[in-house]
Amino acid sequence: MTYCVAIAVKAGIIFCSDSRTNAGVDQISTYSKMSHFGRDGERQIVMLSAGNLATTQAVINQIKNDINEHAKYNLLTISSLDQASEYVGKISVAQQEKYGKDSIYEASFIIGGQIAGSPHQIMMIYPQGNFITSSVDTPYLQIGESKYGKPILDRIIDPDVELNTAALCALVSMDSTMRSNLTVGPPIEVMVYETDSQLLNHRYRLEQNSNYLHDLNHAWDERLKAAFSSLPPIQWAEISYHDQVNDEFQNQPNN
Amino acid sequence: MTYCVAIAVKAGIIFCSDSRTNAGVDQISTYSKMSHFGRDGERQIVMLSAGNLATTQAVINQIKNDINEHAKYNLLTISSLDQASEYVGKISVAQQEKYGKDSIYEASFIIGGQIAGSPHQIMMIYPQGNFITSSVDTPYLQIGESKYGKPILDRIIDPDVELNTAALCALVSMDSTMRSNLTVGPPIEVMVYETDSQLLNHRYRLEQNSNYLHDLNHAWDERLKAAFSSLPPIQWAEISYHDQVNDEFQNQPNN
Repeated sequence: MTYCVAIAVKAGIIFCSDSRTNAGVDQISTYSKMSHFGRDGERQIVMLSAGNLATTQAVINQIKNDINEHAKYNLLTISSLDQASEYVGKISVAQQEKYGKDSIYEASFIIGGQIAGSPHQIMMIYPQGNFITSSVDTPYLQIGESKYGKPILDRIIDPDVELNTAALCALVSMDSTMRSNLTVGPPIEVMVYETDSQLLNHRYRLEQNSNYLHDLNHAWDERLKAAFSSLPPIQWAEISYHDQVNDEFQNQPNN
Repeated sequence: MTYCVAIAVKAGIIFCSDSRTNAGVDQISTYSKMSHFGRDGERQIVMLSAGNLATTQAVINQIKNDINEHAKYNLLTISSLDQASEYVGKISVAQQEKYGKDSIYEASFIIGGQIAGSPHQIMMIYPQGNFITSSVDTPYLQIGESKYGKPILDRIIDPDVELNTAALCALVSMDSTMRSNLTVGPPIEVMVYETDSQLLNHRYRLEQNSNYLHDLNHAWDERLKAAFSSLPPIQWAEISYHDQVNDEFQNQPNN
């Protein structure tokens, strides 16, 4: 399993991905799920991948080959992130169908970044090859094991949050996911893209033994518990008593 | 969709369920997912249900009929919660297979309570009819849309927490689920069973317009946001800079 999240705010984009790959609990490996392509000052595209590892590796190889071979469409010449998503979607579908149509070959991708002259953007590419972008109301996209880490994103992220806040929220979202799902794990990679910079010089990798990851895990656990204990205790008297539903088998005579 | 959770601690059991049923977004209805069967002072069994509504209703009807008709096995005569789970599992499988084997007919159940002389217990019955119980390490069971509400249970619940704390945690878990999944919704039903009481006289129902539900939602949102803002800001300098992976396409010459 995998968890990847991209958050697009006014100030830029945060990309965050885990690195655990598993095919059964005794086949766990570490693979980076984050790739990037670009030319400083002109374009930067980051790609996160989830799903069948053979498919995602084949897709990334094809993208690299197209660049090396100066193919007509490649990520260094393509003129928009929409076109880039369509291009990645087509490669992904072709790779999935190569070995027969079966959902085990499925893969999803997030791509994001900026091409000079256009706004920065993130897109999610479904296994079927179609894609969506984020919005003001939902300024983030997730692939893989997305549910455990969604509530904190919904509460914290809006387009005006600062990049460091968005990055911290991505890491907390990742922490909740790792805690609940063993197949999501470090190293955690984080990429910070600043709007209109056309540079990717803020890349970080948090290893299994990262002090920061450990401290964050501990701090968030402590604060969540404190938040919970500070909730007002239940006042049962304020809640309506309920004694109507399915009550016919209370106190039946013995048979 | 549905979300039901049962928490078994030393002091007793908390049962909590939503009441939203949907078959497509324009077919949303309200059905209680909580039933109970028992004789005060002798046994109390609470049942939570998730899955195909026709199946769960048929299972509950069969259980009621068996009681009315004094069937050899029924929930008011059966001697253990293990046997009760096996009995419910068999009925569930029979009902699912009645209309052809298809996963759309699947249903899951949680049953829990206490039969005098035996310890209180909770069990989860899979669509296949087999079942598990909770443990000291995992003192809760969930059915339906379980992921959004799992992290808070993992952090707060252990066998020594008080019943009111467990109830509050169940409601916070429900709140996170409702926020992230529109197909889980009020009325929220809560049943509190106190160990060795053999009574079910703490039943509560929180309606859509419940002030308590609204206040809890607001209080938890506020406290989670405060917990997040109190986290130490990211110190990027403490995190190792990462510049090795997939870097070959940075700053390629134009083609």
